[in-house]
Amino acid sequence: MSSRQNERPIVYHIPACPFSQRLEILLALKGQIEAVEFQVVDITRPRDPELLEKTRGTTALPVLETPQGGILKESLVILDYLEEITAGPPVRRIDPFEHAIERMLIAKEGPFITAGYRLVMNQDRDARDGKHKQLLDLYRDLNDFLLAYGSEADQADGFLFDKFGLAEVVFTPIFARFWFLDYYEDFALPDEPGFARVSRWRDACLAHPAAQQVSREEIIKLYYDYALGLGNGALPPGRSISSFTAHPHWRDRPWPPASKYEQAASDRDLGLA
Amino acid sequence: MSSRQNERPIVYHIPACPFSQRLEILLALKGQIEAVEFQVVDITRPRDPELLEKTRGTTALPVLETPQGGILKESLVILDYLEEITAGPPVRRIDPFEHAIERMLIAKEGPFITAGYRLVMNQDRDARDGKHKQLLDLYRDLNDFLLAYGSEADQADGFLFDKFGLAEVVFTPIFARFWFLDYYEDFALPDEPGFARVSRWRDACLAHPAAQQVSREEIIKLYYDYALGLGNGALPPGRSISSFTAHPHWRDRPWPPASKYEQAASDRDLGLA
Repeated sequence: MSSRQNERPIVYHIPACPFSQRLEILLALKGQIEAVEFQVVDITRPRDPELLEKTRGTTALPVLETPQGGILKESLVILDYLEEITAGPPVRRIDPFEHAIERMLIAKEGPFITAGYRLVMNQDRDARDGKHKQLLDLYRDLNDFLLAYGSEADQADGFLFDKFGLAEVVFTPIFARFWFLDYYEDFALPDEPGFARVSRWRDACLAHPAAQQVSREEIIKLYYDYALGLGNGALPPGRSISSFTAHPHWRDRPWPPASKYEQAASDRDLGLA
Repeated sequence: MSSRQNERPIVYHIPACPFSQRLEILLALKGQIEAVEFQVVDITRPRDPELLEKTRGTTALPVLETPQGGILKESLVILDYLEEITAGPPVRRIDPFEHAIERMLIAKEGPFITAGYRLVMNQDRDARDGKHKQLLDLYRDLNDFLLAYGSEADQADGFLFDKFGLAEVVFTPIFARFWFLDYYEDFALPDEPGFARVSRWRDACLAHPAAQQVSREEIIKLYYDYALGLGNGALPPGRSISSFTAHPHWRDRPWPPASKYEQAASDRDLGLA
């Protein structure tokens, strides 16, 4: 391991990636966004061999490199590490029972992400209703959890406890990515009591000042290729530029067609060429 | 929530369950096995409605109930909770980077358990080689992780760091359950360099004094029904007593037939009736 004395940890990341946004939100809550140096990885190009060697061949991001050259992977692991080494107010609950509750909620993030990404990437019309239902069932489970364990509505602005905490750090970037579901899949939470608590939670998460790293427009434009079933910078047939490209900037492109099952847009349609 | 003042937390558990053994090992390492009251749940009978109400309908164990009536699920969550509330030496690494390393290793436990349980429960001879290979690949990944992040061999007795710690608490009960793989599946780690480090780790884990809650004979006899593809107390055709029963005691029963693909033993063969 090569040593970079007196330097900050480096986080290698994809700016639009939800797992990276978790780290940015945590640091923002602690007032410590400068405690880490973020280095952008372009997923539309082959991975830098030097970084590949550091990660021992894996390509998942974010990855944190300590000044001593130590490598950490997995956003939940890096979150806890940054919480422990960084100044600023604690984001996790200090009370052990409350911390266990936030960890039980966080344990639900994996299947939730998977269900949403499978839905946006789905290309089979016949499978669509089933995938909508799977995601709704997971939202209902979150709703029940918040009712059983969360603070009362009038105390908490909708958060699990009395403020935006570790569970919110973990879920907010997912809720933000799921803007692609309302756009490409007409997915909306039903206006029913069984979803009311989780709706309040999601809205409170997305509105928090520490969690404004990405906008709805950015997510919908960048993730267009996911709506065609292609992730991680892979190119749809007939296209030569990924929707994740930084050039041209997403602000300068038109909104993509929402009708993912009817048509696939060209580079030109998307304002990429 | 009803309150039991001045009482210990209760853990509802299945004694042979690997997730429960994690809690017992942690408490043993801290010298605090009396800090919790263990209440046995018989998985061969319908679940007690009072416990089902406490868990809001889920049946997975272990579950911890605080003296105030709070309910915690998920063995990894309960482990962290017990670490935080219980006296005795810390089991987790105190150094944040080392703690992050043990958490990265712990993050590999889910797929590892799944691969081993799918193999023992497999009933399709043609799928057997593939499932053996899947598990071997995961052992190789653990081996590579220990080489990249673990202590040097001569410092550590084979553990990740200098002593039996949190990663060992999590994995040791799985290694112990996987005794059913060498018995029912002729599964063995190859005597090759690519498995040498993880072999040393497994052996060191299984030999530790704090981790002797179950024996190989107990696991092989109790888990016989898993070798027939049936988990959680479900009964194979023609049988009337689960291999998990406490009566008769496993010590008083003969060893089950290892040839799971050729024959299914009767209650009488197994010493159950």
